[in-house]
Amino acid sequence: MRLRNKPWAVKLVNDHPESVLQNPDPSKKIDWRQRFAKPDQPISIEIGSGKGRFITTLAKEHPERNFVAIELQTTAAGIILRTKLTEQLDNLQILRGDALNINYFFAPHSIDHLYLNFSDPWPKARHEKRRLTYRAFLERYQAVLKSAGELEFKTDNAGLFAYSLQSFNNYGMIFDFVSVDLHHEAEEILNKNIETEYEHKFAERGNPIYAVHAHFVEE
Amino acid sequence: MRLRNKPWAVKLVNDHPESVLQNPDPSKKIDWRQRFAKPDQPISIEIGSGKGRFITTLAKEHPERNFVAIELQTTAAGIILRTKLTEQLDNLQILRGDALNINYFFAPHSIDHLYLNFSDPWPKARHEKRRLTYRAFLERYQAVLKSAGELEFKTDNAGLFAYSLQSFNNYGMIFDFVSVDLHHEAEEILNKNIETEYEHKFAERGNPIYAVHAHFVEE
Repeated sequence: MRLRNKPWAVKLVNDHPESVLQNPDPSKKIDWRQRFAKPDQPISIEIGSGKGRFITTLAKEHPERNFVAIELQTTAAGIILRTKLTEQLDNLQILRGDALNINYFFAPHSIDHLYLNFSDPWPKARHEKRRLTYRAFLERYQAVLKSAGELEFKTDNAGLFAYSLQSFNNYGMIFDFVSVDLHHEAEEILNKNIETEYEHKFAERGNPIYAVHAHFVEE
Repeated sequence: MRLRNKPWAVKLVNDHPESVLQNPDPSKKIDWRQRFAKPDQPISIEIGSGKGRFITTLAKEHPERNFVAIELQTTAAGIILRTKLTEQLDNLQILRGDALNINYFFAPHSIDHLYLNFSDPWPKARHEKRRLTYRAFLERYQAVLKSAGELEFKTDNAGLFAYSLQSFNNYGMIFDFVSVDLHHEAEEILNKNIETEYEHKFAERGNPIYAVHAHFVEE
């Protein structure tokens, strides 16, 4: 979802280069160790963080892990940054950049978890290549995820979910968890689920939330 | 679903050994060619046909294919048989037997399509092995399906669907079609869908119908 532009967010983002990387040059290696307070912690990333409810909650609950929120929109990046500063989340970095370049942003097989939450469904067949679960993206995710690393995908969009299941399967990924009604699963699963802004709204209307966790096999 | 026992059905089934095979001896090969009017047509099977709305409709629409309805209950077998006789479906046979024995009932790699519709979900973890999409069943399906043969699975049960997706994927099956809302797919897909008795009832209540088509890879 495109957010209305907020001037304060643009200023905040520009004032905090130590927290937000903006459109980094893909030809230059990013030194993530230098950007985190605890450089030895494993890194997880979220692609398309929106206002950041999911990734900031995760960062707060897991101080023993480092996180990168990837988000193109400046206003959204500013909202995530505001939370980061308020909550003093020194294990969270924000990256304004294109998901297609993530294999330039991160070293090969360096990422623990990759989260995709409520990604744009791009329902038209001619827009298939823009879906974040399209084969070309999976190649890049495979390049940056550790061999036991997990891709965790959630959506309320039936078409995108079915498409993604088939895309993951046809790519050779192994499913570790599948749900077609995440909010009515057993308590042990519900307790681990961190809601995004969208998810909270959609689930309240009674819409099912779909989820799949999968990993790649060795190349 | 267990049907109330109907004496007429038991009699009808017993009177028609040319149409219904009852608990065949797994050690003896079944000569299917001899049981069909057109022996050279490819064979498709449904496991758990219930009252047979799906398989009898399919048999009527596809006189160029042969079909076997596998159903344990005599009353259900009798209802399918009644339809077969009324509609003169000489491309449909009925088999009262256990799905676990299908690799004895059919020659290796001799089956075109295997249909599983609204199978018993067996929701308790300790009953996993009874689910018709459990690994031990997949081994048998792989043994009888042709190499390009298709397993087509439909259910309204969210738990069984998620379980089956993971079971198929972990077994190495390739997904050819996935839907988490079959009754709201595009017209070309809806037009090809043949409803079962259950499906008709559940879909009328607005419950989503889940479907996956998948094939095995060479052993």
